[in-house]
Amino acid sequence: MGDRNLEDSVTTLAWGGDNLKLIDQRKLPFEEVFVECRTALEAASAIKDMVVRGAPAIGVTAAYGVALAAIEYRGSDKKGLLEHLANSIKLLSGTRPTAVNLFWALKKMDKLIKDSKDLKPGQIRDKIISEAKKIEIEDIKINKMIGQNGLKVFLKLKKEKFSILTHCNAGALATAGYGTALGVIRKLNEENLVKKVLVDETRPYLQGARLTSWELQKEKINFFVITDNMPAYFMSKGEVDAVVVGADRIAANGDTANKIGTLGLSILAKKFGIPFFVAAPVSTIDFDTKTGESIEIEIRSEDEIRKVMGRQIVPDYMDVINPAFDVSKASNITAIITEKGPLYPPYIKSIRKVKDGGRR
Amino acid sequence: MGDRNLEDSVTTLAWGGDNLKLIDQRKLPFEEVFVECRTALEAASAIKDMVVRGAPAIGVTAAYGVALAAIEYRGSDKKGLLEHLANSIKLLSGTRPTAVNLFWALKKMDKLIKDSKDLKPGQIRDKIISEAKKIEIEDIKINKMIGQNGLKVFLKLKKEKFSILTHCNAGALATAGYGTALGVIRKLNEENLVKKVLVDETRPYLQGARLTSWELQKEKINFFVITDNMPAYFMSKGEVDAVVVGADRIAANGDTANKIGTLGLSILAKKFGIPFFVAAPVSTIDFDTKTGESIEIEIRSEDEIRKVMGRQIVPDYMDVINPAFDVSKASNITAIITEKGPLYPPYIKSIRKVKDGGRR
Repeated sequence: MGDRNLEDSVTTLAWGGDNLKLIDQRKLPFEEVFVECRTALEAASAIKDMVVRGAPAIGVTAAYGVALAAIEYRGSDKKGLLEHLANSIKLLSGTRPTAVNLFWALKKMDKLIKDSKDLKPGQIRDKIISEAKKIEIEDIKINKMIGQNGLKVFLKLKKEKFSILTHCNAGALATAGYGTALGVIRKLNEENLVKKVLVDETRPYLQGARLTSWELQKEKINFFVITDNMPAYFMSKGEVDAVVVGADRIAANGDTANKIGTLGLSILAKKFGIPFFVAAPVSTIDFDTKTGESIEIEIRSEDEIRKVMGRQIVPDYMDVINPAFDVSKASNITAIITEKGPLYPPYIKSIRKVKDGGRR
Repeated sequence: MGDRNLEDSVTTLAWGGDNLKLIDQRKLPFEEVFVECRTALEAASAIKDMVVRGAPAIGVTAAYGVALAAIEYRGSDKKGLLEHLANSIKLLSGTRPTAVNLFWALKKMDKLIKDSKDLKPGQIRDKIISEAKKIEIEDIKINKMIGQNGLKVFLKLKKEKFSILTHCNAGALATAGYGTALGVIRKLNEENLVKKVLVDETRPYLQGARLTSWELQKEKINFFVITDNMPAYFMSKGEVDAVVVGADRIAANGDTANKIGTLGLSILAKKFGIPFFVAAPVSTIDFDTKTGESIEIEIRSEDEIRKVMGRQIVPDYMDVINPAFDVSKASNITAIITEKGPLYPPYIKSIRKVKDGGRR
């Protein structure tokens, strides 16, 4: 896999039977190299250090992290295995606090382990591995359904072609494949409905400038990278027909935590009368969190602000601060596009309906 | 001057009798080196290449550029001198289209030259030099008056201390000294009224991360550098009491062209009920431009987006776009703080009053 070339489609992660290969997203688009995780600890570090990022991709990686924990355990006693699995789940859950998919996937694995207590260690391990694979395969399937549903939502806007603004990367790289927000854009492009995509560079980590651009280039979709302070300018010029972003956690009332900058975009879109869409799997909805106010916002390393891909822009002796996410108010979100269809306001009702309809 | 150290106060430009030294703002805060201009062409290049930037500083530099043109002319015939001066003014006016102070200063020089047609070449040259000096000295005086007027405006907000957000650099470096928006912050700090300053990094050129931070550090004012997508987050947390920015051109109705990103900030501030102030000399007001819609927006080099201080972040084969300014609507501006006092809405009236009161 190390010698993949630019012509290949995007591979975010690849399970190798006893290892998980992750494309190193810190080095894209300049180097396409893979990091190989052979232990739960290595998977946890890859999440924490942002080798892999994006809420759904973090969920899938965490599930495989539990699979690696099951494989790496050398003992033959069940008690020891269960203890090691519990510790590994704890380790993986401590990596990043905001994206709910991490906790969703780990909870799923935890339940599976509890339900399998009467099985033999080897059977437990096999069940864990197959569950992780299932989560991965389902994620791609779900994203394609999100794309389909996104197409329906866009067709209602009755425009010939769309100029779409997106923030951060909610693409194949943020998921097991295809993407959520970029999945919608991919689907629109398949139908020849994309005029252009405006890609926010998304400081500090540059997910837009480095990752979304890389994916769009591969798909041959017309795009421009802009800096994070330019969206209002292009909106005011009538150059944005819709905004589509992903989500890291959606509260039961529709408030949505996503990459820092999304809050500002949602307010600007509302001001300019531009539809603002969140594209995310139902697993991103945190039914237990009533509103966005109680969502924990991760504060990341100051170095991410002070350095841009290793180049120092703010001296170390100066103060910086680095909140990684913000929360957009439900009232500024036109629709939340999920695999179960688009959800519309009032979200308290439409989200409750999804919950009552059962979780995948 | 080349061996100035960090303890010195900020020197943006220094006239040397037959040369103009400009601190190289492209290299701050990591290197404090000066570029020496000995010809009008060198001054024009320094403006175009952003060795010097900031609307008032560009105006002063352009005035000295005309002085250099007068000095560099080796002939003794008046006709040749006047022709060379006219050509140099044309050259200087072609450097950057948005900041009106450039045209204001050049117009002032042009008028002076026309009024001096009966004098001898040597006398014309001396008058030009002394006019450029006067523009420089007056700029600092005006900025201090803006600071004073800003203090009065802030005192009306009746808060003990202020957390202030600023964008780009409207400081000593953007002027002949002291600054406009940063002049207000300097004055507030002299009165011990500053809690903290939130400094937008201001991609692509990083005027906030590199220049405003550098000035605030020298003044020992408490500050944090944030990325351009974070203001809404801090506003939503109640961490911003006011926004203060400079201006590159103010239309007769109060619409204000300023560094890209200002438009978004003005909308967000309004949404969160936060006062949004523009601090600028009266020379920034373009009485001949009715509204912001007819202000020309400079589109700068794509390389500024693709590279951050030389570090490539977007490959050359990808599309980017780089508008350098945007226009904030007068309706989102709480007050325009000038040396003649704060102007309040309706700006059509308050600006007309300044015009009728005579221009400095």
